[in-house]
Amino acid sequence: MDVEKAVRDLERTLGPSKVDTSAATRDGCARDDSPFAGKIPAAVVFAKDSADVAATLAVCQSHGVPVTPRAAGTGRTGGAVPVEGGIVLATSTMNRVIEIDRKDLVAVVQPGVLLGEFQELVEKEGLFYPPDPSSLKTCMIGGNVAENAGGPRAFKYGVTREYVLGLEVALMGGRVLRTGKRTVKGVTGYDVTSLLVGSEGTLGVFTEITLKLVHAPTEVATVLALYPDVRAAAAAVERVVENGIVPRCLEMMDEDTLEAVRKHGVSVDARAKAMLLVEVDGRHAPLDAILEALGNVLTDGAIDVVAAQDKAQQARLWEARRALSIATRKLAKYKLSEDVVVPRSKIVTLLDRSAAICDREKVRHLAYGHAGDGNLHVNFLWNDESEKPQVERAIEGLMRATVELGGTLSGEHGIGLSKRAYLPIEQGSDLIGLQEDLKRVFDPGGLLNPGKIFPTGHGAC
Amino acid sequence: MDVEKAVRDLERTLGPSKVDTSAATRDGCARDDSPFAGKIPAAVVFAKDSADVAATLAVCQSHGVPVTPRAAGTGRTGGAVPVEGGIVLATSTMNRVIEIDRKDLVAVVQPGVLLGEFQELVEKEGLFYPPDPSSLKTCMIGGNVAENAGGPRAFKYGVTREYVLGLEVALMGGRVLRTGKRTVKGVTGYDVTSLLVGSEGTLGVFTEITLKLVHAPTEVATVLALYPDVRAAAAAVERVVENGIVPRCLEMMDEDTLEAVRKHGVSVDARAKAMLLVEVDGRHAPLDAILEALGNVLTDGAIDVVAAQDKAQQARLWEARRALSIATRKLAKYKLSEDVVVPRSKIVTLLDRSAAICDREKVRHLAYGHAGDGNLHVNFLWNDESEKPQVERAIEGLMRATVELGGTLSGEHGIGLSKRAYLPIEQGSDLIGLQEDLKRVFDPGGLLNPGKIFPTGHGAC
Repeated sequence: MDVEKAVRDLERTLGPSKVDTSAATRDGCARDDSPFAGKIPAAVVFAKDSADVAATLAVCQSHGVPVTPRAAGTGRTGGAVPVEGGIVLATSTMNRVIEIDRKDLVAVVQPGVLLGEFQELVEKEGLFYPPDPSSLKTCMIGGNVAENAGGPRAFKYGVTREYVLGLEVALMGGRVLRTGKRTVKGVTGYDVTSLLVGSEGTLGVFTEITLKLVHAPTEVATVLALYPDVRAAAAAVERVVENGIVPRCLEMMDEDTLEAVRKHGVSVDARAKAMLLVEVDGRHAPLDAILEALGNVLTDGAIDVVAAQDKAQQARLWEARRALSIATRKLAKYKLSEDVVVPRSKIVTLLDRSAAICDREKVRHLAYGHAGDGNLHVNFLWNDESEKPQVERAIEGLMRATVELGGTLSGEHGIGLSKRAYLPIEQGSDLIGLQEDLKRVFDPGGLLNPGKIFPTGHGAC
Repeated sequence: MDVEKAVRDLERTLGPSKVDTSAATRDGCARDDSPFAGKIPAAVVFAKDSADVAATLAVCQSHGVPVTPRAAGTGRTGGAVPVEGGIVLATSTMNRVIEIDRKDLVAVVQPGVLLGEFQELVEKEGLFYPPDPSSLKTCMIGGNVAENAGGPRAFKYGVTREYVLGLEVALMGGRVLRTGKRTVKGVTGYDVTSLLVGSEGTLGVFTEITLKLVHAPTEVATVLALYPDVRAAAAAVERVVENGIVPRCLEMMDEDTLEAVRKHGVSVDARAKAMLLVEVDGRHAPLDAILEALGNVLTDGAIDVVAAQDKAQQARLWEARRALSIATRKLAKYKLSEDVVVPRSKIVTLLDRSAAICDREKVRHLAYGHAGDGNLHVNFLWNDESEKPQVERAIEGLMRATVELGGTLSGEHGIGLSKRAYLPIEQGSDLIGLQEDLKRVFDPGGLLNPGKIFPTGHGAC
């Protein structure tokens, strides 16, 4: 590996304007929105098109230099952190919406398109692109596809994978492939597209993404329900699911989360120690029947249930949920948000187990999340580096409890660096070995986004 | 390769009762519901559990003997045809529904469970498993997963892939892995489950399947619309999609299909030269609004539009669609049904192109299918072997037209033997090569279901 030679080669091949070796840029691209710091890369390539991406992957391959792909760098598990330095390959400069086809309900975008801006464009056409991770104003679609991003609306609409029809992808060494289709159905060959979605930048770099769109709902209603404890709220979640009510969002917040939100200045009934925020929508279907059914199942055991159908009222109901990320971040110097998933009937058990684990390890925690999917953000909070070992034991305890309850380590953040050590808790060595073999088909030298997903990956940070 | 030794080894390992070497069974398992005949296998193993499957794959690997997995053998593209003889590995004897979990909306089944029987069990619980290939009474879930089966209800509910959460799979050589999850969300590692779904029995043999269920709709309504020509019907399909109406089924039949159905004794208005059969459903949502919207967009250019909300009337409206398979089969000695998919706005263009191609090649054809998805069953009919070359030219013409229009070769039948020669029309050699590399990760010796999907596969039949 000769990074300096690779940088000179990249400057010659791509032109120096696309290869940024300034300290500020390199520093900025050594981290993402996780607590992990990588090794500062030798250069950051800002690709303008798929040829630039392919050329970068060819040059790095020939010099044996590691490449870490990066869209917006808003990931939570270190997926965009350059563990081994090398080159960061940024696709944030490939930000064109190539096509929005109203008739075929298809969009074609480059990976650097901001999710929020794309959604606005799509909604102007009366269409809808549902995935809505909380970073939607700052995250980019390339990263969403790499991590298979979710969000509150996944309960009804599914995650990013459900919307990716086809990909143009550049592989290590510089080959560019097209996978998938432009049609909603298709079973021609293996589903390479689904293999690439959620592969966390370890198999290839997306240069063009074909997405499925749906028509925008014409009716939306929001319901807020307050409970005396999280058990009552979780029971209400189970009743929603059991009655076959499919809200687009079904969000839960526990006592400590509500307390954080109150401290942040959002007014929430003092008696409430758990909250559900539920949103239903429809098209060519009035919401009266579903709101009535929802009212019936939410009311039991609740302190209060409030519904809103106009936008101003809806925004008020969303206030606590929206404040949540900032409000909880203020609680301690360090915060790590996990995103485990359990079968929906196991939510209360997991919350009980988390509380017991955190009591034992003396770690402060709180929980909220997409309860309808069983996807909970258990947040660990600490103020001093010296507490790190007990936090790590608590996280491992949470992972073990999750898997024992039939769950999975990650619902939407990915494994990245933060959970790779826990992968063997969920997956057998045969399955991990098979995935490593699949990785080798795409990247025999292990140069593309090294150190991610697999516990035996290259150097930690 | 020593098939005789492998058979003796299998008899010893599994016990002779599971290894059937009778001529009748071996003959029966040399074909499926496609026009292809394979080489008669030396034996058919009827596996009772995953250990039997693993042992068979271990024995065959050690003797270098090809294995062709088989569930019900109802596939349309030769996926279960043993091109090289060897051993047929039947999972039809693994037919237990292990679990239906009403709370978590999950079912666990063995691969030999009949789809229709499973759907009945699920519906008794008030739940719903949507995929509905026309063979649903005779096909098995293992085959559905291998081929990623669809059906009319895919327009609203998606295909089999959308319902497979996790798999237990035995690989060539005898390793048994668990992939995926039991939760609706999960991004832990690569999506190996999606790679296996639709892999046509070439990567592994499913021994247990974890499926997502949904709640059964409480309201269903059926609408039949008749048109003076297929162009008017296709325009109505486009209006349905453009207006964001999402029926669960949106089926189209062309003039020749209606003629076949009439000959079969089903009464259809003589003026009608195209038919749409549309079904909408809902839960906690009355259908009045969607039926009104549907009525508005179907009526334009229609001869007649009829709606039915009770079961008897609905069955009458479905009569033509249900008769279709038998009715069209009577039209000629040979029939081959393709299942190409085009973007929905290209349906009329594809029908025009098919007609021109068949005129030129003097091949009789008709078309029907899942118009909402752009998934058309173009059927080629012929009576004499001597017509085969012109039929093949017509099929190739259809495939080229489909790809030129932005479509894909197969929407639900798979590639198997019947379409493998056409794969390069749609996919580049790099993508085909990558898939062959993925195949080698699972089956380095190329012994599992050889000759399928890839144009350069082992011996044709």
